[in-house]
Amino acid sequence: MEITVALDAMGGDHSPESIVEGVRTLGEDRRGPILLAGQGEAIERCGPLPAGVEVVPAATVVDMHEPPSAALRRKPDSSVAVAAGLVRQGRAQAVISAGNTGAFMAFCVKTLGRLKGIQRPAIATLMPTHKEPCILIDVGANVDCRPDFLQDFAIMGKVYAEKVLGRPSPRVGLLNIGGEAGKGNELTNAASVLLESTPLHFIGNVEGRDISSGDVDVVVCDGFVGNVILKYGEGLAEMIFDFLKEIIAQVKAEQGSGNASSEVFKKLMNSTDYAEYGGAPLLGVGGASIVCHGKSSPKAIANAIRVAYRFVEQGVTETISREVSAVHHE
Amino acid sequence: MEITVALDAMGGDHSPESIVEGVRTLGEDRRGPILLAGQGEAIERCGPLPAGVEVVPAATVVDMHEPPSAALRRKPDSSVAVAAGLVRQGRAQAVISAGNTGAFMAFCVKTLGRLKGIQRPAIATLMPTHKEPCILIDVGANVDCRPDFLQDFAIMGKVYAEKVLGRPSPRVGLLNIGGEAGKGNELTNAASVLLESTPLHFIGNVEGRDISSGDVDVVVCDGFVGNVILKYGEGLAEMIFDFLKEIIAQVKAEQGSGNASSEVFKKLMNSTDYAEYGGAPLLGVGGASIVCHGKSSPKAIANAIRVAYRFVEQGVTETISREVSAVHHE
Repeated sequence: MEITVALDAMGGDHSPESIVEGVRTLGEDRRGPILLAGQGEAIERCGPLPAGVEVVPAATVVDMHEPPSAALRRKPDSSVAVAAGLVRQGRAQAVISAGNTGAFMAFCVKTLGRLKGIQRPAIATLMPTHKEPCILIDVGANVDCRPDFLQDFAIMGKVYAEKVLGRPSPRVGLLNIGGEAGKGNELTNAASVLLESTPLHFIGNVEGRDISSGDVDVVVCDGFVGNVILKYGEGLAEMIFDFLKEIIAQVKAEQGSGNASSEVFKKLMNSTDYAEYGGAPLLGVGGASIVCHGKSSPKAIANAIRVAYRFVEQGVTETISREVSAVHHE
Repeated sequence: MEITVALDAMGGDHSPESIVEGVRTLGEDRRGPILLAGQGEAIERCGPLPAGVEVVPAATVVDMHEPPSAALRRKPDSSVAVAAGLVRQGRAQAVISAGNTGAFMAFCVKTLGRLKGIQRPAIATLMPTHKEPCILIDVGANVDCRPDFLQDFAIMGKVYAEKVLGRPSPRVGLLNIGGEAGKGNELTNAASVLLESTPLHFIGNVEGRDISSGDVDVVVCDGFVGNVILKYGEGLAEMIFDFLKEIIAQVKAEQGSGNASSEVFKKLMNSTDYAEYGGAPLLGVGGASIVCHGKSSPKAIANAIRVAYRFVEQGVTETISREVSAVHHE
């Protein structure tokens, strides 16, 4: 099957270079023509294009931080608009952009239309897990959702898991704050009832930690929650890698060329050990109360007691009382 | 300043052992009596208690998965209830529990009361960052929030950052899906306006990745979002450490006792490289459209093209259309 893909050649932080280079990187995997929507001159500066890769001129570019609504109105001739248009015209079967996500979505919805029965298109992304990656949907297209939107996300995510990831009968979970039914917010409680009524393989509520377990194929949530999780994951992974780099350098300096990996691991574990932090305070009640993790080690309990001491000594409760009444009387 | 702490000796997965052992671990840092609420016999089996550590008998225990409302009604004599009561009676200045969080909260609110002006008590937790830990509030006490609840969370988190973490003029950020004002959902848009009006050092919207940046002291969100982030972070960190352990074992087997740490790092990076996954599909529009990260490398672009091929070839759009209409007509 020959497939033609339209690429927004001007979208992204390193365009058009990374886009053109991406097409070259594809190599043998290419399945047909590739259409690069963008400014011919800029694209040509990236070197000669492989045979079958063609520029489709687009006069303007949507900036990364341009409001999507403004781009939609003012830049029908932008690279992203032209790329989406190529699918609409039947000249390509798929469109790809690394540019302004909101603008890309807006042009896709406008140009390609919403599928019948789908109230809100959604963005699905793959998340790393202990086993195979899972799908998180929605990760930012819809910040305020109704329960029936989440039902649509579940169906779309299931089809994607089946067709693109090749998972038979994908397990669909609803992201929630507890495994038990009825433990969520208004949105998830209502969505849960809806999901039960579908022919999906709905496994019920899943918690944040299940996302990386590999035991769910499709995790459904509203786009606000999905987006903060996606970005938090990126930030946390980066942080852990930074620690790791630092620790490796340190261990190398200390140990010369000895076998350092277990030492590295030990230091890394310590630096991100949740028990170090002690318990979490319940704020807003008339006393000092510290909540600990059910799995608390003796070290975590001792740290919670230290936190309690500081809490009392520093008069946290009294200060909250004072400051909250100051704000409310302003 | 002498401080007496009441501990729910029966709460948590490894109680009372881990609780008693935690008190021993505290050692020299102890600042006064410690009252262990719980079943005397079980506590005594953990060995002799240090001087000044005393058992206060409690007949029952709230199970980890017992609904808080039921516990509140049926178990006024539970270890967590007795522990909270000790603060109420003035016999202790702080209470700590590693048991059922919802039940602990319920007993604290009932026994200690809500602070005047605070509509909803909230749980604050420390999150690891590149620099000093930051506070995330709320992480699960309130799943459905009004904008003014978030204002209270911000004030409480700020006081905690100041008093317990010793941060002067803590930077308070509102967790959102974009840095720009007006980019959130209804709740955050309204909360943002409220927060602007407080005397807090409000730095505006922050994104998921800012939580681990170390550039914010207090990150404010509703308890649903905070809880999934907290648990996702635990799961993700665990997953990365598991990878690391595996890779260390593998590298050791391959290289004997050579210096393996850089090799470990390289393998780990590859195994969690977001670029491996290619782009994220926008589902629900009338065509195949793949969204890429603005920072996409050529490898990520090439992978997005591979994803587009599979998307088209497998007829994802057509299948979604078909399945969504089947569900809506049921």
